[in-house]
Amino acid sequence: MAGTRDDDAPSSALFDEQHSAEIVAGSFAATPDPRLREIMTALVEHAHAFVEEVGLTTAEWQHAIDFLTETGQACSGTRQEFILLSDVLGVSMLVETLNNRSGDTLTESTVEGPFHLLASPRRELGDDIDEVGSGEPCLITGRVLDDRGDPVAGAQVDVWQADADGFYDVQRPGEVPERNLRGLFSTDESGRFWFRSVVPCYYPIPTDGPVGRLLHASDRHPYRAAHVHFEVSAPGVRTLTTHLFVAGSPYLDSDAVFGVKRSLIREFAEVDDPDRAEEAGLRNPFRHADFPIIVQREQAPPPAATSDDGR
Amino acid sequence: MAGTRDDDAPSSALFDEQHSAEIVAGSFAATPDPRLREIMTALVEHAHAFVEEVGLTTAEWQHAIDFLTETGQACSGTRQEFILLSDVLGVSMLVETLNNRSGDTLTESTVEGPFHLLASPRRELGDDIDEVGSGEPCLITGRVLDDRGDPVAGAQVDVWQADADGFYDVQRPGEVPERNLRGLFSTDESGRFWFRSVVPCYYPIPTDGPVGRLLHASDRHPYRAAHVHFEVSAPGVRTLTTHLFVAGSPYLDSDAVFGVKRSLIREFAEVDDPDRAEEAGLRNPFRHADFPIIVQREQAPPPAATSDDGR
Ligand SMILES: [Fe+2]
Ligand SMILES: [Fe+2]
Repeated sequence: MAGTRDDDAPSSALFDEQHSAEIVAGSFAATPDPRLREIMTALVEHAHAFVEEVGLTTAEWQHAIDFLTETGQACSGTRQEFILLSDVLGVSMLVETLNNRSGDTLTESTVEGPFHLLASPRRELGDDIDEVGSGEPCLITGRVLDDRGDPVAGAQVDVWQADADGFYDVQRPGEVPERNLRGLFSTDESGRFWFRSVVPCYYPIPTDGPVGRLLHASDRHPYRAAHVHFEVSAPGVRTLTTHLFVAGSPYLDSDAVFGVKRSLIREFAEVDDPDRAEEAGLRNPFRHADFPIIVQREQAPPPAATSDDGR
Repeated sequence: MAGTRDDDAPSSALFDEQHSAEIVAGSFAATPDPRLREIMTALVEHAHAFVEEVGLTTAEWQHAIDFLTETGQACSGTRQEFILLSDVLGVSMLVETLNNRSGDTLTESTVEGPFHLLASPRRELGDDIDEVGSGEPCLITGRVLDDRGDPVAGAQVDVWQADADGFYDVQRPGEVPERNLRGLFSTDESGRFWFRSVVPCYYPIPTDGPVGRLLHASDRHPYRAAHVHFEVSAPGVRTLTTHLFVAGSPYLDSDAVFGVKRSLIREFAEVDDPDRAEEAGLRNPFRHADFPIIVQREQAPPPAATSDDGR
């Protein structure tokens, strides 16, 4: 029969337990895209090694099938339960980190999270991103430099955060102004930015789906340490997605999605100084965090070859 | 704050790439069920090793999230796309095999597959399970013995198969009688069974979902080698789920779900003998396969302790 093989041919796919990963990986050997082939081969090897190592029972396998199915079916336009699963297994942070290695120089990255749903409103330096006025007032300052130490003027600094009760604006529709605690700032000529806000609170990730059940069964809490999201971009630099964490927040050492890196934790120090408060436009006392940011300048592309380049 | 930890405590969950698997596995250390803890720890270690090994990019991770989400959303009451994914990655066969190790004695097992949807109708030994009459007639015979060599009288032999065009009855509703090519037989006093049928054809697994796209991208065909499903059970023996494969079928060496084991391939030899055909109730010539089956007798439970057992 055309296009089929004879069963006397080398029995490459006849199954046996000892060679299962090799046999299945072999079925991906003709994958045209070499990268897909590499990924599927490694996936098969690790999946089979995992099943063998734990001696997965048929009932446990069925449980895993049901869990994955429910996770897929919990996803909707406004909820991504598979990303949440990736998050609580630390896979999201690993992918984020290995794709944005910071060396000893750059500000470290962390995951974007699910709350960057709304475009942040354009604001002026010094503006208050809090339009509600409950919570501890704070001043956040910083300076964007590149990896050569040069200031990045006109860098876009996009920030969003939970309020003092641990809720994002999108979780309190009708209760708080839309786009509260979001802002898009542009750095000044020396790369500096500053704005007013309230100190954010820790908050739980959603626990009413399969991922929440996994956390519960594992005796893991669902909380994320208090943080302000930052996304910093400018022409010619690599966009940085990160968080500023509040020193002293609960859950810094057990963040549910492993988002905390030591270098991203900053003091929100109390300032009791009526003059500085008045200058900042905040009531006294207030808290102040400084978050210096170092972004990577991208390699300039090599000069384009032209028709009169010496040939 | 009650129930929270101080950020001066050992920074067990502060993320770094080099220790990512260890950090995340540590978050499962307090899982009350030791088996869940073991499974989650191994899962985290393999998932992180996989991501590091291939250097998964952010775009590839997003692609994987989308693929898993679509796989979950393709599942319905009549379709299980995650089992199909497990099947084409050889995970189903590995789980089946390591939970039913056959040693050198027992008939090997293989996966049940998705077509055991309908209870097979009770039939008498010698009955024809084909009510349509298209395809090559065949006689299937066998004997069920236990691992001590004793016949298993009254064993239930449940069989189901595709037709000569590669379709199960449930795929042709209205066209063929319901429960065509299904039968539930009971072995005779010497453990024997025999029935008439048609030689099954190879057939494709469903390709109209995410798993089909994966096969296509990997240049893998979707076909399963021709087979008859068997499920053999009896009181006191371990139920055996397996296939009888048709020697010479295309795809024996590249079955899409890796279901083929060499010991399960049997000749469907042509018999050209009018007397034997008449005896079997088949038109001459016909084909004949013999499938001896050895099942595992379960350990007798130890005698129950009684109140007068010597104490
Ligand atoms: Fe957040
Ligand atoms: Fe089948």
